[in-house]
Amino acid sequence: MKNICILGATGSIGTQALDVIRRERDSFSLSAISANKSWKKIIDIINEFNPRFATLMDSIAYEKVKIYCKENNKNTEVLLGIEGLNTIASLDEVDMVLTSVVGMIGLYPTLKAIQSGKDIALANKETLVVAGEIIMEEALKNNVKILPVDSEHGAIFQCLRGNSYKDVNKILLTASGGPFRGKSREELKNVTVDEALKHPKWNMGKKISIDSATLMNKGLEVIEAHFLFDVDYDDIQVVVHPESIVHSMVEYKDGSIIAQLAAADMRLPIQYAFNYPERKEAIIEKLDFYTIKSLTFEKPDMKTFRPLKLAYEAGKAKGLMPAILNAANEAAVELFLNKRIKFLTIGDILEDAMEKFCSKEKFTIEEIIETDKRVKEYVNSKYLT
Amino acid sequence: MKNICILGATGSIGTQALDVIRRERDSFSLSAISANKSWKKIIDIINEFNPRFATLMDSIAYEKVKIYCKENNKNTEVLLGIEGLNTIASLDEVDMVLTSVVGMIGLYPTLKAIQSGKDIALANKETLVVAGEIIMEEALKNNVKILPVDSEHGAIFQCLRGNSYKDVNKILLTASGGPFRGKSREELKNVTVDEALKHPKWNMGKKISIDSATLMNKGLEVIEAHFLFDVDYDDIQVVVHPESIVHSMVEYKDGSIIAQLAAADMRLPIQYAFNYPERKEAIIEKLDFYTIKSLTFEKPDMKTFRPLKLAYEAGKAKGLMPAILNAANEAAVELFLNKRIKFLTIGDILEDAMEKFCSKEKFTIEEIIETDKRVKEYVNSKYLT
Repeated sequence: MKNICILGATGSIGTQALDVIRRERDSFSLSAISANKSWKKIIDIINEFNPRFATLMDSIAYEKVKIYCKENNKNTEVLLGIEGLNTIASLDEVDMVLTSVVGMIGLYPTLKAIQSGKDIALANKETLVVAGEIIMEEALKNNVKILPVDSEHGAIFQCLRGNSYKDVNKILLTASGGPFRGKSREELKNVTVDEALKHPKWNMGKKISIDSATLMNKGLEVIEAHFLFDVDYDDIQVVVHPESIVHSMVEYKDGSIIAQLAAADMRLPIQYAFNYPERKEAIIEKLDFYTIKSLTFEKPDMKTFRPLKLAYEAGKAKGLMPAILNAANEAAVELFLNKRIKFLTIGDILEDAMEKFCSKEKFTIEEIIETDKRVKEYVNSKYLT
Repeated sequence: MKNICILGATGSIGTQALDVIRRERDSFSLSAISANKSWKKIIDIINEFNPRFATLMDSIAYEKVKIYCKENNKNTEVLLGIEGLNTIASLDEVDMVLTSVVGMIGLYPTLKAIQSGKDIALANKETLVVAGEIIMEEALKNNVKILPVDSEHGAIFQCLRGNSYKDVNKILLTASGGPFRGKSREELKNVTVDEALKHPKWNMGKKISIDSATLMNKGLEVIEAHFLFDVDYDDIQVVVHPESIVHSMVEYKDGSIIAQLAAADMRLPIQYAFNYPERKEAIIEKLDFYTIKSLTFEKPDMKTFRPLKLAYEAGKAKGLMPAILNAANEAAVELFLNKRIKFLTIGDILEDAMEKFCSKEKFTIEEIIETDKRVKEYVNSKYLT
């Protein structure tokens, strides 16, 4: 029996992770959960899974859950804020922590979990993008597995199974291309938030949907792949694959390419990470090659979708630059979602911030947080008109 | 340094295997070779690689090579016939035997090599088709690896890397579909030998080219896959994939499919088998996903290409039935190549032989050879008009 802690249990990944646990009750027990302020969902989870701890970031939500648990004689201990997150990330009884919180807030508890020797099922993008080096070093030091929970890195992880990392020639990171694939800059000038949110293949949160539309999501994944699999940026090739069936590939030095294919369902990488190295019976629908017909591939248009190109540049610049890029992007997406800037301005903002702020070779987690704050303030003061 | 013996060094696979050895002289040494009667090619190989032994099946060819070696002070010892094959397959100094002879003749020396503890790079189809159970049992008993040397089984072998056989849900065996893909029985009635020999993707020997045109080749591969990977026939799915880039796939029980892709070049599976579990620098051209555009998949038409369906039936019937099928097919292809029967008659002959001859649960190698002979005599006496 593996005891799981889910940081961010009410979001898209958290919800699907709960479904995996629900279907594999013999293998997993839910020890602790957290949410930002979705107290109703947390109460539902408490009723179904009876975790020992629940942390809420929002104090009103915290009160509501606390009162509910008291009135209904629930055993779940309710905690508040970042301290509560750190507590549940390092519980003795927990074997694995799924970090599916959105944003920089995921950084501290992930680090805490690693330092407490917990294996990490990693769904929080920021962790590796802004602090890849620190995280991977800590994981190595604490003999902890970092198991990627997203379709692309999960795929790469599967394609590496049984192989030696030194034999990898390159990683082929597939991308659906998002809702605006094939569009010109001219056509993208006046796209609306609603249009940008309509992802053709995946139903996800708003932030990641916009990132998919700008290809920034793929850019962040390139940086993650670099740290996770220790591969040079020049050896990570993004391949647009609109059908989202090939979830990524690894090319070995002998010219063999190993690919992982599956239905587009996040429960597979979650299930894989939870059970690794075991495989369990399928939760997802199986592919039928007699009906698939065709898988297509193309080169990403990095002139139109500049954020992808900028992500490569930020990654290669090393140091704090990925954190600068990430902060600028978070602020820019927020502005776009609030209809304060146009779609293409997101790329302008990234470029602006990357020019404005200086990187730094060696840095601490505190400096990352500080940089994140300063970049966001800069972007907001300049573009929030 | 690995010492290699190549049984069938002058054919298509043998020649490509020599190219692998030529490019990896630091890793491999050619200890022994054999050929049927291509004495000129054997002399070229002796001059280039200086093997310790060379066996020829044809006595005139044997004499020519023997005289050449004597007159030119070559160290190579020249041997004759099946005895010579058995000798070189079991040499003390040999580490791995590549069995790339065509036909039933490959059976004895392969068995001899296994019993002498040599790892087998297996390119001879008949070995597993007619004697799969015996061969796999002997390999297990002698702690010998059977490494498949053909693009499909080589691909499956790669897709299984690092995984447990018990987690396999099914094998997806890809097929180019051959030169007559999409054709109806009506259209195939009067196809010529030349048309049947024109394979769209692979340049191979005549026998295997005709087998590709009838899909019998894929049928034989289904039977091989059954024995090699211990998978039920119902869990081996043939998928037509005309681009021949995905060389086969494995579906795991969790719904993940792992695929192996590469340029259509036999030197990759040969190199992989020779170096396993290591990977070496690419000999083949690498794939470029920005130019591949599209990979397509379809269901094989087993009504038109009956030999594939019959191969499943023969496999499921077990015992001697695959040997009966294989013998009937060898005889039928020979008749077709000699323009004595029509293309579609090949399927009729297979069906006829499978009805005429009885299978048997347990059998010896001698009974396989005897059955092979009887089936061929039957086919020839009935259809050689």
